[in-house]
Amino acid sequence: MATLKDVAKEAGLTTSTVSRVLNNRGYISNNTRKKVGEAIKKLNYHPNEAARSLRMKSTNTIGLIVPHVSHPYFAEMISNMEAFAYENGYKILLCNSQCTHEKEEEYIRMCLSYKVAGIILCSGSAALEVFDGIDIPVITMERFLDNGTASVECDNRQGGVLAAEKLIACGCRHLLHVGRIGTLSMPADMRTEGFKDVCDKKKVPFIELITEDTLYCNMEYSELLESTLSAHPEIDGVFANSDVIAAQTLQVCRKLNISVPEKVKIIGFDDVNIATLTTPQLTTIHQPVKEMSKMAVNMLHDAVAGKLLVRRTVLPVNLIERETT
Amino acid sequence: MATLKDVAKEAGLTTSTVSRVLNNRGYISNNTRKKVGEAIKKLNYHPNEAARSLRMKSTNTIGLIVPHVSHPYFAEMISNMEAFAYENGYKILLCNSQCTHEKEEEYIRMCLSYKVAGIILCSGSAALEVFDGIDIPVITMERFLDNGTASVECDNRQGGVLAAEKLIACGCRHLLHVGRIGTLSMPADMRTEGFKDVCDKKKVPFIELITEDTLYCNMEYSELLESTLSAHPEIDGVFANSDVIAAQTLQVCRKLNISVPEKVKIIGFDDVNIATLTTPQLTTIHQPVKEMSKMAVNMLHDAVAGKLLVRRTVLPVNLIERETT
Repeated sequence: MATLKDVAKEAGLTTSTVSRVLNNRGYISNNTRKKVGEAIKKLNYHPNEAARSLRMKSTNTIGLIVPHVSHPYFAEMISNMEAFAYENGYKILLCNSQCTHEKEEEYIRMCLSYKVAGIILCSGSAALEVFDGIDIPVITMERFLDNGTASVECDNRQGGVLAAEKLIACGCRHLLHVGRIGTLSMPADMRTEGFKDVCDKKKVPFIELITEDTLYCNMEYSELLESTLSAHPEIDGVFANSDVIAAQTLQVCRKLNISVPEKVKIIGFDDVNIATLTTPQLTTIHQPVKEMSKMAVNMLHDAVAGKLLVRRTVLPVNLIERETT
Repeated sequence: MATLKDVAKEAGLTTSTVSRVLNNRGYISNNTRKKVGEAIKKLNYHPNEAARSLRMKSTNTIGLIVPHVSHPYFAEMISNMEAFAYENGYKILLCNSQCTHEKEEEYIRMCLSYKVAGIILCSGSAALEVFDGIDIPVITMERFLDNGTASVECDNRQGGVLAAEKLIACGCRHLLHVGRIGTLSMPADMRTEGFKDVCDKKKVPFIELITEDTLYCNMEYSELLESTLSAHPEIDGVFANSDVIAAQTLQVCRKLNISVPEKVKIIGFDDVNIATLTTPQLTTIHQPVKEMSKMAVNMLHDAVAGKLLVRRTVLPVNLIERETT
């Protein structure tokens, strides 16, 4: 079995340089990284992470906790995170909390047991006590945690403002806003605030449809949407809290013979790939998922290195006009 | 800091029982599991996985390697795997190979370093030598590996047969089949064989569009589809190798003013959530992703326990008729 020393000899480098590459510490040139990679491959060397993490304070693994792997927004976020983590020498331990706080708490404990370098939390129902005494960085995405290290959000409030302004400018006078989850409090709730402010100022009434987290977890809003649109035939504009909800609204409108955008206009949120695959294509609020993911990984990397971090980072959103308005 | 002994005392159980729960070995009643869980929570106990995996042969972690996290098919598969793994006391280490064999090989090495209990491989471009001398189970999904432990597939050939029969029964006489990747050989290629057999027998010609793996990785087929449908106005039936391709075909038809299903009929593959969100909704070949995921996790669990496994398992597919045929 090959040892670290064998790898160093094969690569023509010192063992301390090889060790730096393996542990991803300090400056390492691409050339050096390549040489070490080739030597590892040639000798079929497997560093023993278990032994290493006993010696070291932590592994090069990031615990990524999401509420919902198959939701297109999180799928896109995970994909981006994984790519940026890989670039920075980290691996991802993926935890799917399925929106339950028990599972979220259990996964947080697991991350600590595995000595992850840090946690990126995109789920937020765990009791705060779980985080007590944690000495690794916790970066939150679209969540705010009093005792977290730093958070990355999009400008949810502005998203709500843009949606209301657009629908009203299109002539809508009876609005429906779908998606805030009644049982959870999160930054996405600010979308409702921004939406409400504009509606109040322009004196346009709106119905708010507060959903349950079971709907969110199953991505199944059709029944709720159908009964609401049937009971309120006056509705002429819908602002949905995700593109998944917006796409389902389109299908329900079709079923009820409501033409979009002629009779009802729809605006989604996220701008995931589904938005361009519906007919008509979705007008939506674009979240910079790629930039947000990159920022979260970079922050974690900086936090591990002991750098001072901005506590709360809010990235801009913008309206992408397609065919539902 | 709480120890295993403290947990046992708190739970009113022996340390060996607590150890069995933590290591997921032998029969454990739900009641025992619950007691241990509560004691762990109360005492804020974190078993040290690093120390444990040095003592034990492996961790309770499954290395899951996929080519593409944000592809709806893999997103759904990951979500199901995670749920079944959790039920069986395993955690998922997610690796996104991004369709490159370098990354796939690197992740396989990483899984070994982390002493995973086994690997579930949904990606298949790695050189076979990487698997030489591996003494943990390797379960493949929709891939076949000569030196793998066991594979789970859907009946791809039958999917191709069902699609061709349906399109021809609908009156299509100039078919297009999209999606086989030229540079990779995989069980999904059998779809083409089944499709071809039926077309040959019924003497219906078809054009086969072989794609590049870069298109697969970026999920971007629109340009290719547009130039093909423009150059071949006689095409009246399309069999796409995924719902993502089928949904993009719908958008391209719309752009070219080709009505679906009147002028062109379309059949997708997978039956992921996107299939019911397009207009018209997609007729598609349903893959039993949930059952396949469950089976893969169970097989891995059995393999870890030293049980004899079926080498190759093929699950049935069926045609879901919606509105594009």
